[in-house]
Amino acid sequence: MIVVMKIGATEAELEHVCKKAEELNFTTHIIYGKERNVVGLIGIEGNKEGVSLIEELPGVDKVVPISKPYKLASREVKRESSIVDVAGVKFGGEDFVVIAGPCSVEREDQIVSAAVRVKEAGARMLRGGAFKPRTSPYSFKGLGEDGLRLLAKAREATGLPVVTEVVDPKDIEVVDKYADMFQVGARNIQNFALLTLLGQARKPVLLKRGPATTIDEFLMAAEYILSENNRNLVLCERGIRTFETATRNTLDISCVPVVKAKSHLPIIVDPSHAAGQARYVPALSKAAVAAGADGLIIEVHPDPEKALCDGAQSLNPSQFAVLMNEMKAIAFAVGRRI
Amino acid sequence: MIVVMKIGATEAELEHVCKKAEELNFTTHIIYGKERNVVGLIGIEGNKEGVSLIEELPGVDKVVPISKPYKLASREVKRESSIVDVAGVKFGGEDFVVIAGPCSVEREDQIVSAAVRVKEAGARMLRGGAFKPRTSPYSFKGLGEDGLRLLAKAREATGLPVVTEVVDPKDIEVVDKYADMFQVGARNIQNFALLTLLGQARKPVLLKRGPATTIDEFLMAAEYILSENNRNLVLCERGIRTFETATRNTLDISCVPVVKAKSHLPIIVDPSHAAGQARYVPALSKAAVAAGADGLIIEVHPDPEKALCDGAQSLNPSQFAVLMNEMKAIAFAVGRRI
Amino acid sequence: MIVVMKIGATEAELEHVCKKAEELNFTTHIIYGKERNVVGLIGIEGNKEGVSLIEELPGVDKVVPISKPYKLASREVKRESSIVDVAGVKFGGEDFVVIAGPCSVEREDQIVSAAVRVKEAGARMLRGGAFKPRTSPYSFKGLGEDGLRLLAKAREATGLPVVTEVVDPKDIEVVDKYADMFQVGARNIQNFALLTLLGQARKPVLLKRGPATTIDEFLMAAEYILSENNRNLVLCERGIRTFETATRNTLDISCVPVVKAKSHLPIIVDPSHAAGQARYVPALSKAAVAAGADGLIIEVHPDPEKALCDGAQSLNPSQFAVLMNEMKAIAFAVGRRI
Amino acid sequence: MIVVMKIGATEAELEHVCKKAEELNFTTHIIYGKERNVVGLIGIEGNKEGVSLIEELPGVDKVVPISKPYKLASREVKRESSIVDVAGVKFGGEDFVVIAGPCSVEREDQIVSAAVRVKEAGARMLRGGAFKPRTSPYSFKGLGEDGLRLLAKAREATGLPVVTEVVDPKDIEVVDKYADMFQVGARNIQNFALLTLLGQARKPVLLKRGPATTIDEFLMAAEYILSENNRNLVLCERGIRTFETATRNTLDISCVPVVKAKSHLPIIVDPSHAAGQARYVPALSKAAVAAGADGLIIEVHPDPEKALCDGAQSLNPSQFAVLMNEMKAIAFAVGRRI
Repeated sequence: MIVVMKIGATEAELEHVCKKAEELNFTTHIIYGKERNVVGLIGIEGNKEGVSLIEELPGVDKVVPISKPYKLASREVKRESSIVDVAGVKFGGEDFVVIAGPCSVEREDQIVSAAVRVKEAGARMLRGGAFKPRTSPYSFKGLGEDGLRLLAKAREATGLPVVTEVVDPKDIEVVDKYADMFQVGARNIQNFALLTLLGQARKPVLLKRGPATTIDEFLMAAEYILSENNRNLVLCERGIRTFETATRNTLDISCVPVVKAKSHLPIIVDPSHAAGQARYVPALSKAAVAAGADGLIIEVHPDPEKALCDGAQSLNPSQFAVLMNEMKAIAFAVGRRI
Repeated sequence: MIVVMKIGATEAELEHVCKKAEELNFTTHIIYGKERNVVGLIGIEGNKEGVSLIEELPGVDKVVPISKPYKLASREVKRESSIVDVAGVKFGGEDFVVIAGPCSVEREDQIVSAAVRVKEAGARMLRGGAFKPRTSPYSFKGLGEDGLRLLAKAREATGLPVVTEVVDPKDIEVVDKYADMFQVGARNIQNFALLTLLGQARKPVLLKRGPATTIDEFLMAAEYILSENNRNLVLCERGIRTFETATRNTLDISCVPVVKAKSHLPIIVDPSHAAGQARYVPALSKAAVAAGADGLIIEVHPDPEKALCDGAQSLNPSQFAVLMNEMKAIAFAVGRRI
Repeated sequence: MIVVMKIGATEAELEHVCKKAEELNFTTHIIYGKERNVVGLIGIEGNKEGVSLIEELPGVDKVVPISKPYKLASREVKRESSIVDVAGVKFGGEDFVVIAGPCSVEREDQIVSAAVRVKEAGARMLRGGAFKPRTSPYSFKGLGEDGLRLLAKAREATGLPVVTEVVDPKDIEVVDKYADMFQVGARNIQNFALLTLLGQARKPVLLKRGPATTIDEFLMAAEYILSENNRNLVLCERGIRTFETATRNTLDISCVPVVKAKSHLPIIVDPSHAAGQARYVPALSKAAVAAGADGLIIEVHPDPEKALCDGAQSLNPSQFAVLMNEMKAIAFAVGRRI
Repeated sequence: MIVVMKIGATEAELEHVCKKAEELNFTTHIIYGKERNVVGLIGIEGNKEGVSLIEELPGVDKVVPISKPYKLASREVKRESSIVDVAGVKFGGEDFVVIAGPCSVEREDQIVSAAVRVKEAGARMLRGGAFKPRTSPYSFKGLGEDGLRLLAKAREATGLPVVTEVVDPKDIEVVDKYADMFQVGARNIQNFALLTLLGQARKPVLLKRGPATTIDEFLMAAEYILSENNRNLVLCERGIRTFETATRNTLDISCVPVVKAKSHLPIIVDPSHAAGQARYVPALSKAAVAAGADGLIIEVHPDPEKALCDGAQSLNPSQFAVLMNEMKAIAFAVGRRI
């Protein structure tokens, strides 16, 4: 890391910094500048606290960390892009993978009919919530294990692998029994108890960025899972919280090329939760294909007007089919296949 | 709720909206305006999905909810301010309560000495982390139950009640054994599994606002706990995430008077996590007293340069004693007592 | 507008609200709800101050405005999309218009060579700054009228119409002499003196969204120009300020479909200022085409490593040519022509 | 500045960086680390573009600037706090200066009566807008020079010096004729044409932070004025734009201690524009005194219910008098005098 001294910091202050740094096991290296001096600290920067303590020493203007806090998620460490296989569906390769389905699993006919319709239109995986995190304690919280059973029926009926959210560490076991991929929702991006346990699981994980999570923190959350040895990880951009209220969140489309530059992990986009309104979902979906995402997760409900959850952001099956068609041509234009 | 029609929406569109609303059990009431019409929907607005579906109907410009999504937390429902008693320490009354202590419990002498020093300076409760949520999987995560035991020793030595964070639902039982108050950290503000269980506990809860949580969502998270029948709840503002990077978070000092206007619950301020740097903690602490907060939770470490966690934002005991003195005069000026 | 009363507001408070509203020339209309009452105020809402005064009356919970503050910019008022003609180049129709060129005009060979190269690759207009707003008083501020003359030479050499920024009302006249389209930069989105004068000009205006401007405020700024009778207006999304620092700004790609839904005005995207780094420009450009934008404004410099301004975000001419090629296929896929 | 190379960057890439840096007149200094190498560039960093070009070279991970972009505003360059004298009223010394008055000047009796009342309560200067920047083209834009004349009458009647906003460079001369201090509004924080001209004026300037301006950019805007040789500059924090909508802006109270640490310039707080609602103004005002601000600028209207502008955020004279009384005790507690 680099310690930047203040203009006019004394020689004694500079020496004190070097002494403290050496106590923290860094080798020091002073660069005398025209206006101010800096000290390079050579060593392992795991100790973030060390960094910030040095920042408080007299004569120090600021401390600049050099190492990235994540390793396993970094493209510096693994140059080739990772391909993640979910029951035969491959994320990160030539295929652009569309996951579709309703926000919540409600009834057998609803989830099976959704699965059949999205498969017909070209979706490769089915989504559907059985455990729902809800901002209000008074909202519908999902069917639980019954919902998982219905998801499994929809998979039997269509062959589509299933991804579903797990919100509580104690539910990992039951979700593992039915689903092909665990989903970590945006609210749990820093639920480290959950991340650690999913890192110990075998099944692939879909990790959604939190609404206030920087891309670096997103990759740190990924590191939690990777460092426990589960390397089957797909990231998902779903909008960040900003001052703009015309959409529920602001889809950070730049997250796609930035993650591609910094990490080898696949990244998909959730346009439904970003927009919060069905009318904007097609434009955002097409933007995601063009920007180089590896896939999409879209809400499709057989009858959005009757959905128990987030109906307003769901496409109906015919809107979805139209969108899939439009996206095929864009995918082709950027060298991908839907 | 109020449905705002577009300029030029047809009579048929207006009727369709009314029909749909009546299917959702609302009574409708049309107001014909000069430029456009609006429909008032009378009924219970629990069904947020209903709201958003109507938003997608043809001719609708937008839907404006009228009811607040929280009830038990609202000052509309309970006018007098709540006073929360934590082992004899009262939040929300005349006393301005200062909680102080280190970020993490590290060793017996560290936590006991911290407790003794902060008590001497006038703190009324002790803080200290035994279970630490950490952004990096490679950082120190706390001593766990050993840390709780040391906290209990520090309580014995000083008589100060103890608050400590619980990050995993499975740890509630063990934390309950040792602590006087549960703390929910900012990252867990929407960890609904945790909130629900704490709502079923008997001990008081200190609920920290998340960095991307609006005040309305903050009160919704409070509602989760209140609705499970634990009414011993204290809120804590600790900074929100904005574009400004000079401080770790942006302390939203307005949260104090806004929460006081909207809710009957006590609210305290955490200046240490907001600032991220010890040098700004005194100014923010004094601002919190003056703004009408009910207390503070401040990081104080007997030797910040050796702290295993967040040392840079900790005051040392003499800085803390100076600050307590300055705050006494301000508290007096606003009719409070430290 | 709608006045929402508090739960438990008295009949007298309700009457007082109605009385005040009638003094402000509104007709009032009470809806009695299950939990609380609301009052619809019928009339012209120009008087924003009236709105907010009513908010402060006893018993009032909040006031909800119904009318949009902009009229001329609204698609409610003008349903068909506007087509803006800039010296024969049409924004908002079937053509997807790419404007390209360097950040600053530096020398004749630089701007002419840039113009020739971007035209070859398919750009339809030339950009280049002669008056530069700079965050630091010590940075290069542009060549002024000399720069405008060089832009005119590049137009002669290529036939490409020219757009350039005007930062000071006193420069409008000289810019008008040379340019085909005025650009209002993001920092001037609320420089109302400038907007008013450009509304009185005849030439088309390219209006960039400010980094902290909501889409509604963006359309209000457009209204300033439209209300002075200049209807030749093209909007430009160029990124908003958020907590994310991996890119210079966060490109709000949703702004494209939202503006298309709310307004009849054409909207283009500036991926260069949003990203701040050339490496992310292609992904964002392609996303903009796919999302339905009417064009792009991209920085291209014949030799980015020697640029006097923002070189790091400029493509070189061959990178630009490759990108144009890729975009043609995407444009075709969404029914547009480059 | 510091160039951080990627892990695995080649020796040739390192050499290329050094060569490019030397072409830009930097001396280079390599530090070989355990994991990656960094290059210190010694020289003057005025050339921000140089910095960013190096960022795009092969093998470079990122470039970290070391120098601050502002000099004259920095406490590193001038250690003692500046005291700014406005017609005998001193900002930055022992006195805590309260400026008060209505948003807009409307009529002679209104402004004179406001001036008399705020003076009685202890205000030291009068505020009042004659030129108003308005988000809507249809709102009241102020009385112009007539308003300035009325301000001068209010000064005669009370002896209070007057501060008023200038929104257009062409109005500087007329404002200079009547006012004691120029105000730059938040929307003009990057109106560099205006800042430069005010830097050439003799009278003191009150510079408001923009809603999307970082503290570093705020000090850069100050640098514009200082570098033109007007050193009579007072800064004003007035809230930043965040996702929170309970207040109009989020008052960044930390801005006060941060500016005090980074700069020698006085800083005051505008609680009225931050809150947007009168009910929150007292809490924010008191917080500002306690946080160490040098003063306040508060909206007070003799009859807020009849104000033509921002009435909802104005205190009436008796509310203001109560607040002044409360603040006196807090000011005393922090060693200041109102």
